Amino acid sequence: MKKLEQLYEGKAKKVFKTDDPKLYIVEYKDDATAFNGEKKGQIAGKGAVNNVMSNIVFQLLEQKGVPTHFVEQLSDRETVVKAVEILPLEVITRNVSAGSFAKRYGVEEGIVFENPTFEFSYKNDDLGDPLMCESHALALGLATEEQIETIKKYTAVVNETMKEFFLEKGLKLIDFKIEFGLYDGEVILADEVSPDTCRLWDVKTNEKMDKDRFRRDLGNVEETYQEVLKRVQK
Amino acid sequence: MKKLEQLYEGKAKKVFKTDDPKLYIVEYKDDATAFNGEKKGQIAGKGAVNNVMSNIVFQLLEQKGVPTHFVEQLSDRETVVKAVEILPLEVITRNVSAGSFAKRYGVEEGIVFENPTFEFSYKNDDLGDPLMCESHALALGLATEEQIETIKKYTAVVNETMKEFFLEKGLKLIDFKIEFGLYDGEVILADEVSPDTCRLWDVKTNEKMDKDRFRRDLGNVEETYQEVLKRVQK
Ligand SMILES: Nc1ncnc2c1ncn2[C@@H]1O[C@H](COP(=O)(O)OP(=O)(O)O)[C@@H](O)[C@H]1O
Ligand SMILES: Nc1ncnc2c1ncn2[C@@H]1O[C@H](COP(=O)(O)OP(=O)(O)O)[C@@H](O)[C@H]1O
Ligand SMILES: [Mg+2]
Ligand SMILES: [Mg+2]
Repeated sequence: MKKLEQLYEGKAKKVFKTDDPKLYIVEYKDDATAFNGEKKGQIAGKGAVNNVMSNIVFQLLEQKGVPTHFVEQLSDRETVVKAVEILPLEVITRNVSAGSFAKRYGVEEGIVFENPTFEFSYKNDDLGDPLMCESHALALGLATEEQIETIKKYTAVVNETMKEFFLEKGLKLIDFKIEFGLYDGEVILADEVSPDTCRLWDVKTNEKMDKDRFRRDLGNVEETYQEVLKRVQK
Repeated sequence: MKKLEQLYEGKAKKVFKTDDPKLYIVEYKDDATAFNGEKKGQIAGKGAVNNVMSNIVFQLLEQKGVPTHFVEQLSDRETVVKAVEILPLEVITRNVSAGSFAKRYGVEEGIVFENPTFEFSYKNDDLGDPLMCESHALALGLATEEQIETIKKYTAVVNETMKEFFLEKGLKLIDFKIEFGLYDGEVILADEVSPDTCRLWDVKTNEKMDKDRFRRDLGNVEETYQEVLKRVQK
């Protein structure tokens, strides 16, 4: 597998072509951003944590029937993935109130929902990734009705699988963001699953074990990423 | 029917108790506000237009199987309505892109949707009536699953009925906001249906025939409200 020219560089990863047009190599960076790019920094070791953790979770999800872009880990920061056309929708599910949800609706963090919520953000940095309901995505032609149904079905499996998996590691899954793409016309899970994209609270102390440590300057940012990886690898 | 003490005063209406605890009298004002109360003004004659128009539409909707709060018009500004407990959800359906939708998602106004959209705003002035998806309303206990299903069913009938009705009057129904309340535990349509709460464009010229004339200082505000009432009464 040859790493050819860089296709694009995002806030957290670089994507490279390979000699196989159906495969890309993603390279995870230590760059961290928050609040729609307003806050910028570095979290040493984050790239490796997010790469390895994503790959562990993606392989578990494949076993549970969710097709993912994962092909092969090349190094602690590099992975071969299926080249997809990313749907411009961030898919967000929440089990407990936190973050933008708590702020937007004026509620405290930590409210446990009876049923998980489901929402989109329109993946558009210029617009600040605005909240979007299902019917909006449909109306704007960002996904078909069938694709949205598939995404909802997979997201429910992702939530149940990850909730159980993280709980075994002493972590509560509060909420998460995932991205889907089209591969041979089929919806598959792409991008990453990491402390950048999941809120994880320690099951005993409720300590935040995710990017909120960076967002809110809570300290021990690098250590927390390492601790999450250690638990996930156990 | 006796008009007793004022219960509350909103941005567009006053609500009074009556000698029947199950009935209120609403009195429509000429006050106009926009952009979450930032812009304030008066539209002479608006109260009467909105009252009479709401009552015409509510009676039509009753015929189509949507229960409403309408009981009896007392004067050009006053109507007896069923006293409901308003659900804190603004229910919004869009047939064509406009207003906050166009702005939020960076699209032009006037995109005709294949299927109408459905969204809530959390009715909370302090929070700026934020956009809310179905699962959020459920998670926060603002409505039950059954109530939301009923609201969706009624809203679809409201949209189809009003689209047809306004089209006969030379008006395109672009989008609208409605409110529901609980009366004897049942979901019924309450509040108002008027140029304050519907976007209506002239079918020939696409001229805006609604509160956007006030919001955007397009002129002929009073005249437009009168013209809409004239057409609706025909
Ligand atoms: N399998 C894949 N194929 C193509 N693009 C992908 C794949 N997985 C992730 N991407 C995209 O790679 C880009 C870089 O990732 P990232 O740095 O996280 O971007 P962003 O700044 O949008 O968060 C993103 O646009 C992401 O959606
Ligand atoms: N049938 C009803 N019973 C009780 N309250 C009602 C009824 N219909 C409307 N209302 C409420 O009356 C209040 C006054 O209306 P309005 O001036 O439009 O208020 P707002 O400032 O919230 O837009 C609103 O809270 C509205 O929801
Ligand atoms: Mg990303
Ligand atoms: Mg109102």
